[in-house]
Amino acid sequence: MDNFEFCVGTDILFGKGQLEKLPGVMAQYGKKVLLVYGGGSIKRSGLYDRVKNALKEFEIVDLGGVEPNPRVETVRKGAALCREKNIDVLLAVGGGSTIDCAKAISAAVFYEGDAWDMVLNAAKGAIGKTLPVCTVLTIAATGSEMDGAAVISNMETKEKLTIIHPNLLPKCSVLEPENTFSVPARQTAAGSADIMSHVMEVYFGAEDTFLTDCICESVLKTVIHYAPIAIREPENYTARANLMWASSLAINGLCNAGKAHDWSCHYIEHELSAYYDITHGVGLAIVTPQWMRYVLSDKTVDKFAAFAVNVWGLDPHTEKFTLARQGIEKLEQFFRSLDIPMTLGELGIKDEHFVEMAKHAVDFTGIGSISYVPLTPEDIVKILRECL
Amino acid sequence: MDNFEFCVGTDILFGKGQLEKLPGVMAQYGKKVLLVYGGGSIKRSGLYDRVKNALKEFEIVDLGGVEPNPRVETVRKGAALCREKNIDVLLAVGGGSTIDCAKAISAAVFYEGDAWDMVLNAAKGAIGKTLPVCTVLTIAATGSEMDGAAVISNMETKEKLTIIHPNLLPKCSVLEPENTFSVPARQTAAGSADIMSHVMEVYFGAEDTFLTDCICESVLKTVIHYAPIAIREPENYTARANLMWASSLAINGLCNAGKAHDWSCHYIEHELSAYYDITHGVGLAIVTPQWMRYVLSDKTVDKFAAFAVNVWGLDPHTEKFTLARQGIEKLEQFFRSLDIPMTLGELGIKDEHFVEMAKHAVDFTGIGSISYVPLTPEDIVKILRECL
Repeated sequence: MDNFEFCVGTDILFGKGQLEKLPGVMAQYGKKVLLVYGGGSIKRSGLYDRVKNALKEFEIVDLGGVEPNPRVETVRKGAALCREKNIDVLLAVGGGSTIDCAKAISAAVFYEGDAWDMVLNAAKGAIGKTLPVCTVLTIAATGSEMDGAAVISNMETKEKLTIIHPNLLPKCSVLEPENTFSVPARQTAAGSADIMSHVMEVYFGAEDTFLTDCICESVLKTVIHYAPIAIREPENYTARANLMWASSLAINGLCNAGKAHDWSCHYIEHELSAYYDITHGVGLAIVTPQWMRYVLSDKTVDKFAAFAVNVWGLDPHTEKFTLARQGIEKLEQFFRSLDIPMTLGELGIKDEHFVEMAKHAVDFTGIGSISYVPLTPEDIVKILRECL
Repeated sequence: MDNFEFCVGTDILFGKGQLEKLPGVMAQYGKKVLLVYGGGSIKRSGLYDRVKNALKEFEIVDLGGVEPNPRVETVRKGAALCREKNIDVLLAVGGGSTIDCAKAISAAVFYEGDAWDMVLNAAKGAIGKTLPVCTVLTIAATGSEMDGAAVISNMETKEKLTIIHPNLLPKCSVLEPENTFSVPARQTAAGSADIMSHVMEVYFGAEDTFLTDCICESVLKTVIHYAPIAIREPENYTARANLMWASSLAINGLCNAGKAHDWSCHYIEHELSAYYDITHGVGLAIVTPQWMRYVLSDKTVDKFAAFAVNVWGLDPHTEKFTLARQGIEKLEQFFRSLDIPMTLGELGIKDEHFVEMAKHAVDFTGIGSISYVPLTPEDIVKILRECL
């Protein structure tokens, strides 16, 4: 069991009508709020009005239009707004993209250079002071509501990079499952794949982390149980609530406590998103089973067999390689049952950039060195070809 | 799924050699430290010297001799020391009793009246400002290292009461599994029963908390798997590490997220400890199976059957009442296999105070009103008689 630090002080307000507690929390940070949101779904759902009404004692500056796969241009714009308007606290109302954008803005405000320089140098100390960020979550997916990470895209340079810092952890997140009732089936499915991916990225590591492994399996079983229900019955509170809490617990450190980090599939998927701007969860659903098949070996088979038994309930008496392959097959079938497109071909993606994408992943991440199964650019190209 | 708030910002430093990070964390609070510890086992193990050495840049005031079931007298003494020596931060090195004592001291420092008044009025706003508390944990048991509660005893009035406040949450807890290598078998067993009790107290509640239930089962399975190993091989790092992390996760809010609180067995056990000063975990191990048998009914049987299947791996096709009873029997057998005395008779306890104990429990807790199965004083006496 590896050493680890776990420090996640986000104040989670979970359940019905929790929005009303938010003003009390935010008041301690100040009165000037940058309200960050996406494409307008929160206006259609009425949430925008509820938020505005809850914060009627605050001065609110709007920053709408945050993109899926949020762009560095929006981060620049938000940071400039914060400086110009002397913003005290950011409130992100939306999903992972909106929250990530708010987090990056909260740090970029205090960064002297360009926001993209900050992203490129995040691991080298570019992130320091930040403005406090609160969130109102509208989709169960990225877990950004309870972690200290953000992913920002630069479509000019075709890069999608992750910044991580304890100061990026939201101060408070309002998790009202009812705010996810209006999430369409397609996004519910992609979000569910994203939650599962966060767990699967770290699950296939150490052998001596029994408790952490059981918790990983708990999150996976929850998504497997409730994603189909939420898609079938979008207003099923229990399903939406369990998925929402699964989203937060999947990536806040609980599922990799004592385990070496991995994230191979995320690194590969980030290349796909950077080149083709695809939905993150869909990219992960396509890449993950192929990655699993590629790294299955004498060294990894026991863990994949455990995955088949503990997550999918398969027969432990089956020969272990067969069992491992059955587990991977179950995962692929599950994603397919949620109507997720399961090949890159279905997204119109061909292989013309695979070589440069693979090289970029190896150059900019630990995929070639510290991963569960380290991958060369050639390995990554092979996995991507299997995804076609 | 009930509404809940989850906000647990304790900085957990888990693993080998983590003590060296503590001075950096503590320095932000000041230089004057009240070092709180128990009966001297940390001197025998060498931990006391390691702590002193790590904190050589700090001014340290010792408060040793904290009792198991810590007394209000020690809280008074500690609070007086803090005032007299202008203490900035408390460091509790020990188990739950030591940590609970430090937490109570941290609040009593700022309370104008007597410390026992503060305990009695904790739920009515008596706890406000506190000094920061850090901990170095030496036994996997109470989870006090990562929660905002403390239990203090008054042997004069025969009362053992819980105080709860967010400000009692430790700022930082050092969890080095090796510090539990020297915990004797008897205490390892009692601590394991305590961890399991924390989960079982909340497990038998709501039906729609799938993820939380899976996490409860994860913690229970971890203790069932590793407690016998830790007793057989006291220096098995993996066993000690998994038990230690289970201790922290059992009671930090994760296992009751979305569930109504219960704690019936703790309320009954607190009466036993207050009258007879018994080991908390032992009292819980005795009371819990008898409480389970007493509350088993048409209303509760499904959950007890799920407990039998998901925690103990029993056959789901068995008739559900039989299954429920088999699960309870498994639990009792497990505690017995750890050499825990499983009757009050073995502790020399007779029934002479049961009536007043039962009345006190109903008067001072929610056991008669908001529990999973509300109990009258007569019910409690019946359960206690079954424990004889």
